[in-house]
Amino acid sequence: MSTPVHPYAFAPAMREPQGSPIRELFPYMSLPGMISFAGGYPSPGSFDAGALQAAASAVMAADPAQCLQYGPTEGMAALRRELSALMAERGAPLPSEQIVVTSGSQQGFELLVKALVAPGTPVWVETPTYPAAVQALRLAGAAVRGIPSDRDGLCVESLAAMLAGCSEAERPRLLYLVPTFANPSGRTLALDRRRALLVLAARHRIVVVEDDPYGSLRFDGEPLPSLLSLAAQDAALAPWVIYLGSFSKTMAPGLRLGWMAGPAEILRRAVIAKQVSDLCTSPWLQLAMASCLADGLLARQTARIIALYRRKRDLMAQALADTFGAALRSEMPQGGMFLWCGIEGVDDAASLLPHAIAARVMYVPGASFGVDGAPSGALRLSFATASDEQIVEGVARLRQAVRASQA
Amino acid sequence: MSTPVHPYAFAPAMREPQGSPIRELFPYMSLPGMISFAGGYPSPGSFDAGALQAAASAVMAADPAQCLQYGPTEGMAALRRELSALMAERGAPLPSEQIVVTSGSQQGFELLVKALVAPGTPVWVETPTYPAAVQALRLAGAAVRGIPSDRDGLCVESLAAMLAGCSEAERPRLLYLVPTFANPSGRTLALDRRRALLVLAARHRIVVVEDDPYGSLRFDGEPLPSLLSLAAQDAALAPWVIYLGSFSKTMAPGLRLGWMAGPAEILRRAVIAKQVSDLCTSPWLQLAMASCLADGLLARQTARIIALYRRKRDLMAQALADTFGAALRSEMPQGGMFLWCGIEGVDDAASLLPHAIAARVMYVPGASFGVDGAPSGALRLSFATASDEQIVEGVARLRQAVRASQA
Repeated sequence: MSTPVHPYAFAPAMREPQGSPIRELFPYMSLPGMISFAGGYPSPGSFDAGALQAAASAVMAADPAQCLQYGPTEGMAALRRELSALMAERGAPLPSEQIVVTSGSQQGFELLVKALVAPGTPVWVETPTYPAAVQALRLAGAAVRGIPSDRDGLCVESLAAMLAGCSEAERPRLLYLVPTFANPSGRTLALDRRRALLVLAARHRIVVVEDDPYGSLRFDGEPLPSLLSLAAQDAALAPWVIYLGSFSKTMAPGLRLGWMAGPAEILRRAVIAKQVSDLCTSPWLQLAMASCLADGLLARQTARIIALYRRKRDLMAQALADTFGAALRSEMPQGGMFLWCGIEGVDDAASLLPHAIAARVMYVPGASFGVDGAPSGALRLSFATASDEQIVEGVARLRQAVRASQA
Repeated sequence: MSTPVHPYAFAPAMREPQGSPIRELFPYMSLPGMISFAGGYPSPGSFDAGALQAAASAVMAADPAQCLQYGPTEGMAALRRELSALMAERGAPLPSEQIVVTSGSQQGFELLVKALVAPGTPVWVETPTYPAAVQALRLAGAAVRGIPSDRDGLCVESLAAMLAGCSEAERPRLLYLVPTFANPSGRTLALDRRRALLVLAARHRIVVVEDDPYGSLRFDGEPLPSLLSLAAQDAALAPWVIYLGSFSKTMAPGLRLGWMAGPAEILRRAVIAKQVSDLCTSPWLQLAMASCLADGLLARQTARIIALYRRKRDLMAQALADTFGAALRSEMPQGGMFLWCGIEGVDDAASLLPHAIAARVMYVPGASFGVDGAPSGALRLSFATASDEQIVEGVARLRQAVRASQA
């Protein structure tokens, strides 16, 4: 069969996302005997399949036509009401008109990109950062620039200096971050930095995207107010924060349900983008989720997952400390799913990976979370998915891999 | 509360889609006593809620972790296998690697736009056409141009003349059409035109998007081969057709399940776009649909819906003929959901609409399906959703409206 080699030469360049952890590593993750700390997958043990199934059956029995017909692009009224109540619990009392249901929070970000980014639009992201956000920005032609972070999250002083040094054309229009239990670093933005970031955003007219899939999974310490809740208290700040919520880490990713909350004008644009993206999110799954929320399932799930993940975090942190001792540089996250660490002598975690795969353990190398492809010594280890035995054994295999790489 | 009036002035212009039938008319559709021929909604009476519910329960019981975890971006293997078998039944035997599951076929088109359209890319569409396709193209900055159609579908001779008269820069890279039981016209592209269109597409290197949500709902006449099936037989044509399938009109829109089938390189690009769009489509709903397909539900549903819609089409056509007599100009569709008609003395169906709403009947005016906003005397009447009594009564109200508009 002879077909033209490049029949679509006219089309925009389209490469696999640089360092997309899931897709590049996927073929290895299912190898027999492999222990994976790589995926950002929640523990299957955290799913309450029975409750979700019962809710789906109940809403279908109650109103099959509503479950199976097209629904409004903004989302089903019943779910938006529950989300409004949830946001109020989270300190940001917004009416349901300021909430839009999305097909997962990945879609939420993509809708924002469509609504606010044109080719060349400058967008800044905290680094290390979530790779699929960078990929969405790059496909839209955004000019992406990284802002450094440290153990207290995004370095707001560095941001201020970068802003002072850039022209009006270079000024970012969007700033993306995961302020609470970040992916990959597990870091949480300190309260004074949250306040300072909002002041800078309003002054420089930057829309801050607060991506918050992990925020409710806090193991230790006091909860911090979300950027959205801080902004909601001040009319000068309110237009500059849009919040992305997700049920993927608390209920189940397979439902593909998330939401956006924030300024009406941003949501209006996002809804127009959603019309052409998928018309609406499945009304059946939305109504099932509304029923679960009304029944208090989220609070029960969250408590269960916190207990589960706290234990797994402690187990992994202890195993790493016992195994690597003083060679370990690690940060202890107060929540979320990830440990972010370095090991003395490992300057490039990507070069270590083949040794790890040979030892049948996997992680995601730090370079995947940058914006410039620069090598990184950091490893992202998820403690959420692996069993207790796998966590202990996987860390031991990691030591074998380090030794093999230094042989 | 004082907020800046235009805080997002930097962002791309974003208007409500011109003439989006559902969104503009939605507030009226739910008025008490309103009879709507407007929505492109399938009849709720066509849904088999019991079978879908049973399938969802069964797959959840069999493998809750797979239903509730993230799935592959391309789609679940079980569903792709069933879709491969379905495409073979439809005359296009493609391996499951050449099939990608989408969150409804609206997402399929949007992924193609992302994969193949840059700002300024010329894209041609048959007219009248599906408005959400035009909106997706416009949001992406495509240069959209309409191609006329007649009772035998897209005028391929007009297309040839337009191609002969345009420069390389103006040459379309994408051509969008619904070749079988088109929305809004109900028209079907004749077989000789199908062949001629493919020859033109290959010669001028144009990717043809065959959107086929209605093709299996044929009431009369012999089935015609899809563009995809014709192209699949010829290596020179195969790179130039991509097919969009949907379960919204045969199973239920609320599942948000569709698929794409065609050249591997286009699908590779679409999958990259899908990663940033929503990561994956709900594995739970995908597995439920795979189970329904394996059980033969689609064939049973299709037979049921054909019988239901054929009767409704006949009823509406008869009512229109009885009511308007020689003043009616209408085309009798051999399948699908829509009657496309004109009434003598009605030169602008949009001007008639307020009279119709006052008489408590609704339709979508023809101008909504153009690309230039030009007035049109045509009305799109859906015969799928209304009850038999509503069809008869709605047509009588339409006559009242015409009389009122001429008073």
